[in-house]
Formats: sequence, C-alpha cells, structure tokens
Amino acid sequence: MKIIDLKNNTTVKAKDLAIERPTIDFALLNNQVAAILAEIKTDRDKAITKYTTQFDGVVLKEISVTQEEITTGIASLSIEIKQAIDIAARNIHLFHEAQKEPIKQIETMPGIVCWRKSVGIEKVGLYIPGGSAPLFSTILMLGIPASIAGCKEVVLCTPPNKDGSLHPAVLYAASVAGIEKIFKVGGVQAIGAMAYGTETIPKVYKIFGPGNQYVTTAKQLVLQEGVAIDMPAGPSEVCIIADNTANPSFIASDLLSQAEHGADSQVVLITWDEAIIPLVRIELDRQLNLISRKDIASKALQNSTIVLVDCKEDAIIVANNYAAEHLIINCLQPELIAENIVNAGSIFLGNYAAESIGDYASGTNHTLPTNGFAKAYSGVSLDSFVKKITHQYVSKEGIKGIAKTVITMANAEGLDAHANAVSIRVSND
Amino acid sequence: MKIIDLKNNTTVKAKDLAIERPTIDFALLNNQVAAILAEIKTDRDKAITKYTTQFDGVVLKEISVTQEEITTGIASLSIEIKQAIDIAARNIHLFHEAQKEPIKQIETMPGIVCWRKSVGIEKVGLYIPGGSAPLFSTILMLGIPASIAGCKEVVLCTPPNKDGSLHPAVLYAASVAGIEKIFKVGGVQAIGAMAYGTETIPKVYKIFGPGNQYVTTAKQLVLQEGVAIDMPAGPSEVCIIADNTANPSFIASDLLSQAEHGADSQVVLITWDEAIIPLVRIELDRQLNLISRKDIASKALQNSTIVLVDCKEDAIIVANNYAAEHLIINCLQPELIAENIVNAGSIFLGNYAAESIGDYASGTNHTLPTNGFAKAYSGVSLDSFVKKITHQYVSKEGIKGIAKTVITMANAEGLDAHANAVSIRVSND
Repeated sequence: MKIIDLKNNTTVKAKDLAIERPTIDFALLNNQVAAILAEIKTDRDKAITKYTTQFDGVVLKEISVTQEEITTGIASLSIEIKQAIDIAARNIHLFHEAQKEPIKQIETMPGIVCWRKSVGIEKVGLYIPGGSAPLFSTILMLGIPASIAGCKEVVLCTPPNKDGSLHPAVLYAASVAGIEKIFKVGGVQAIGAMAYGTETIPKVYKIFGPGNQYVTTAKQLVLQEGVAIDMPAGPSEVCIIADNTANPSFIASDLLSQAEHGADSQVVLITWDEAIIPLVRIELDRQLNLISRKDIASKALQNSTIVLVDCKEDAIIVANNYAAEHLIINCLQPELIAENIVNAGSIFLGNYAAESIGDYASGTNHTLPTNGFAKAYSGVSLDSFVKKITHQYVSKEGIKGIAKTVITMANAEGLDAHANAVSIRVSND
Repeated sequence: MKIIDLKNNTTVKAKDLAIERPTIDFALLNNQVAAILAEIKTDRDKAITKYTTQFDGVVLKEISVTQEEITTGIASLSIEIKQAIDIAARNIHLFHEAQKEPIKQIETMPGIVCWRKSVGIEKVGLYIPGGSAPLFSTILMLGIPASIAGCKEVVLCTPPNKDGSLHPAVLYAASVAGIEKIFKVGGVQAIGAMAYGTETIPKVYKIFGPGNQYVTTAKQLVLQEGVAIDMPAGPSEVCIIADNTANPSFIASDLLSQAEHGADSQVVLITWDEAIIPLVRIELDRQLNLISRKDIASKALQNSTIVLVDCKEDAIIVANNYAAEHLIINCLQPELIAENIVNAGSIFLGNYAAESIGDYASGTNHTLPTNGFAKAYSGVSLDSFVKKITHQYVSKEGIKGIAKTVITMANAEGLDAHANAVSIRVSND
C-alpha cells in the first residue's frame, strides 16, 4: 500500500485529494458482447446451449433446474451451512421488511388527495456468478427483497459446474428466498436470456447481480435497450477511517477481507494517527500469509492507499471525496464521524463492525455502489424491487379549487388543451 | 385514432395485445452527440459559447444569469402567473415533503443495529428545454424535491431566447424552488457542461429533466460515463380506461392534452362501452379545432389507439401490458380498478382527475416513466434526489452472536479473510 501523507506534506489539501481508482474500460468488450447478445436474441435457447458448451465446458440436457435436483442438492448440504443461511436470511428479511412504505394519503388542497403505492416489479432476474464457491449470499441479498416486494416472477441464472450441477448452497439459498425458477446459464448468455427471453427462460424487466467484466458489459448494453439494471458496477472497495483507539489487527483483517475479492479491488485507510500505520503494515504482512487467496489480495493491495491526514475533519473530507462502497469508522464515537459522511454505500460503526458481518448476515444489503457511484446511487434495497406509483383523486370541489392555477400555468406554457381539460370540466358544472 | 376491437374479434386475447408505440432510434444520433460532448470535455466554456451561438443563434457575454436579471425578470411577471406558481409549488412541496423517510433503527440480533439514512445527492443538475413557452413547471417538479432532499448544489441549465434572455416564469419558478445557479445553456452542450464541468458551470453527479432526442442521447451517453440520470426517456403518453359513466368530452380533452405535447406522443383509450367511442370521436374533432397546437395533436392522434375490450378485467390486462406514463381511470369506483394496476407511472382516479392537474399542480411529480418503462421504473420523487446510506453498529455482544454464521458462510464461499475479520475480533476477547 502506498502512503499519501497530507500531514507532513502540506502542499496538497484534503479537499483536493483524488484517490485514483483502478480503471476498467468496459467499452472495449462492447462489440464482442453485443455479438453474443444479438445471437441470443435470434437463436434463443439454441444460442444459450451453444455458449454454455463453449464457455462453461458443459453439454446440458436441460437448462432448467428440476425439483429433484433441488431436493437432492439441499439434502447434501451440511446442517451448519443451512443454519448459517437461515440466520442470515432472517436478519436480511427483518431489515428489508422494515423498508416497506405504508401508503400515506396527502390532501394537498380540499378535494385533491395524492399518494404513492409501492408495487413489486412483476418480473425480475437475478444473476449469480459461478465457480467452485459461488456467492450464494448474494441470492439472499437479492431474492429476499424481491420476495418482500411481491415480485411475481423471480428468475435466477447461474452457471453450472463442470459436471452440470449447481452448488447445494445455491439451491438452498434460492429455496430460502422462495425462488422457484433456476436456470443453469452464466455470463453474457444469462443476461441476454433474461433481457430478451428464450423458449425456456422468461424475459424480465430488471436484472440484478454481480459479474465479471463481460456480464457487466452485457448489463450496460441491455440497459440501453430498455431493460433496467440494479446499478452500474465497478471493482469492490473498502475505506477505513481509524484513530488511535483502533486495533491494527482488526484494521488489517478488514483491508484483507476486501482485498481478497479480486486483484482489482481497492482498499483505503485514512488516519490522523501516524503511529498506527506501521502496526497495520505488520499485521497485513502477517495475516496475508494465512489466507488462501494471498496472491489476489497482494495484487489488490498494490492498488491501495494509506492516507495520513492532519485531523479528523480532513479524514471526513477525504472519505466523502472517495465515496467508498464500504466505509468502516473504526474510531472512538464513530457516530460523530458518521453524521458527517454524505457519500458512502454502507457505513460500519465501531471496532466490532467488520465489513464481512454486513457482507453476509447483519441484515443490510451487500449490493452497493462502487467506483464513486455512492455520490449518486444507493445500494440495493426493497426500493430496487418496486415501482412507487403515484395516485391522485380529484373531487368536484378539488378541481374548482385548483382550476385557475392549472389554466394559468398551461396557458403560460402555451398548452391550450391542458387548460381545456380543466375548463371543460369546470364549465360543465 | 385506430380501433382495436377485442370485443367482436375474439381471436386476439387481451393478454396478447401489444399496443405498438412510436419508435425512436436514439442510437442514430450517438456519433454526432458524442462529438459535441467530447469537445465540451476539452474546450469547456469555449465550446459552450460556440454551440450556443451555433444552435441558439445567440452570442452571450455571460453564461451565468445575474442577480439583476433575476430581479428584473421576476418583476416583469404577472401576479396571476406568480400566484399559480406559488400554489403549485406549495402542493408539490407538501406531497414531496411527506416522502421523507424517518430513520428506523432495526436491532436484527442483540447488539446488531442496522438503519438507513437518506442523504441528499450533493450536486444535481436540472435541464429545462427552452422556447418561447418553456416548461417552467418542470423547474418546480425537480427543484422542489432537490431542495427538500438537501442537495447542496443545484444547477439549472436552460437555453436562452434569441435576445439572450430567459422567460420570467423560468426565473420565478427557479427562485421559488431555491435555485441560485442558473445558466443559459441548452441542448447537448448543457448536458455535457453539467456532466464534466466547465470553468463556469459546476460538474454534477446526477442530471434530471426532459429534452429532445439530442438531449436524451447526451444523457444516455454521459450515463455510460458514470453520471447518473433521472430515467430513460421516450415520447409522452396517456392511457384512459373509461366506462359508460365517463363524459366523452372530458375523455377527449384529456386525450388532446396529451396529444398536443408532440407529434410522437401517444394516447390510448380502453373501454368496454362500445357506445362511448363515436361520442369521443365527435368531441375529439370538435375540440381539436379549438387548440393552437392542432397540427401536432392531429399527428399524435394518428399514432393512437382505441381498444374496445370485452370487460373491465380485460381493460386492466391491456392497461398493465401497456404500462402507461399517465393512466386515467374514468370509471365508476375507479379505486377498484386502481387496486389491480401494477404498471403505470401515475394514476388519475375519477371523472375530475384531468391529467393536466397532475402535470402542474396537484402535488405529484410529472417526471414519469414513458415507453413502457413504468414496468421497472418509478417517476421522480424525493427518492431520486437522495442516497439511502445503510449503517450498522455491532457491539461486542453482537459479533459474538453472529460470528459462527459469518465464518461458516465465508468459508463456504472460499473467502478466508472474510472469516478472519470476524474470528480475529472474537478470539481477541
């Protein structure tokens, strides 16, 4: 990790510090991905089968997962993992259930009543990347709010293993989240299938979930064709603000838990306590040797930065400019710092709030804005799975009270027919 | 308006009816718009001045609107328009203020507390198209929720008139919405300026507002570069469900108030009352002759459709498939139909709920999803101007209770360092 020292080097001010992020130019893949999408649009299941054979190295008899596979898979999963998934699911359910918005009718003027009603998006698609240890936790993070929102059709696509199976934890998490339509399709072909529909896989209105650069590019391309997506994607990242009360080994463990995600992950430590920096470095070296994804984490640390600032206020400025996906405030009275954070995906307060607790089980959602998108985007929540449809009821009294206002504004905008629609109702009386 | 008759022609079922929308291929303009954007990124104010001269036919001394211009402009506006804007602003404020979300702390397990906090997007940009009768109502619809959200910097761009001035109603609406940074820039150059920033115009994180196909293309292109936008755009549209209690002249007035927006607007009438159709046609012909935008509205009616269905249930199916931006339910007991609507931007209930009331003054937002996007998108609301940042506090007790769950899941996903970040904290005790 390189150090940016704003404490001793006073020529750069905190507000002007732009921490460089690893850049990925997704546009490079546009043509390649667009060609696959076009083929899926035309050839549908035939194209899915072709690319599953080509990219996943599996010839599947059946894209859909059968009830028998689900039952057998789930039976093979350890009780321990099942219990962990159950507890995580319970917490995720609790937190997202509380995001339900009751209908509030507002009578803005006598006889004019306005309200919003949240209605689940009818058809949503969830993409879960594959591999020997697939991210089944993401199934809970997407499937549970979809179920609370009342989405009628929830489609899950995830690539099969080499033997054509899915990991039992994927099947169990899907079952806990109430997902019934599971398809063994990965990569660009999964995104294309859900965007356009095939003979087997239903078309959806919104696609959620993480993925590699091909999947991300495919999501961007179908977005331009009118399919909604959860949010733009970039490499995962954590930022930690630490003071002298922080435990250097806890800090190092959090930095590494982010760094192990991928070589393009980024971790940032901001502190005004110069003394903690060498202690964190020692712990990083020590703990790095204990993890299986050491190579990946080492590469990510090369993209990463320690910022030594002059004071707490400057730490807040740097953190807000960076707009981290995950922000851990590992300080005394973390709430006083959190109050001043305006850009972050999710904030973890205190010495015990490891990012991984939120990643799996505290109840908050782990699908969060990366790459500085936290300046404008929220993470996934119940909101992401509903449309809030506005309603208005206008009575005879209501239109009388507002007629002059509407007619005046419509005329001033040169829209006669807008004015007429009101005057004709009032004069008809 | 052409008629689709599902009542007498029973070969097509309501659920299979896809009402064709006018199609616009924005991608055609991509290269042209991208070239202007690239020039703005490099040449900044110089490029803005160049394109304002070229497209708006004005040589401006100053892009920024001065306080003096605002004061003089507002003084010249009629009391009547000011009062109308004041009343509309009050209702819009009331409805959007009620969308504020109180912080709700959820203790998902003992010692694990999760909550969301809404924080205004710091920098937002509003685009308002110009012309002799500019859509100042949109300034209220975007500026008021931005102000309630606590957005710190709200930038308004709108093209100048031929004499270099702005319409006084624009200046007044901006002042009512508390917008202080107004720039005389239109079209692609406005979107580029707010996306990248220039010497004069601040860069923003999210851009809102309607526009022609060039503006829409520019918004799509900057979206791909990481600037958020309000929603994808398409031609405006209304759908009316009417029964035999509806007043044909009210129906016609609503159809025309949508049709006058643009030749590419679309209006749809769904009814199971065959007798009302000729009455609506007579009223359409009569009222069409009374409006100044007759030519535009006539063209829009050519894109438009009357659907005669067999029953109320089929009307609901057709309306949900169409997913209108505006849905007027002009029926007895409209709430019984509204209950079953799952796809719509905004719903207007009852005989007196003219769309134009919601367009201007009832309090609901008029920036709504068009083109079927209501299947996945909500209209603009307070939500559009905030990020909901999740927070979590974990105590020593909290981590003990959840440690096993997190460690088990992390290990099952092959993420050792995620497990370590918890175990190191628990074993340290």
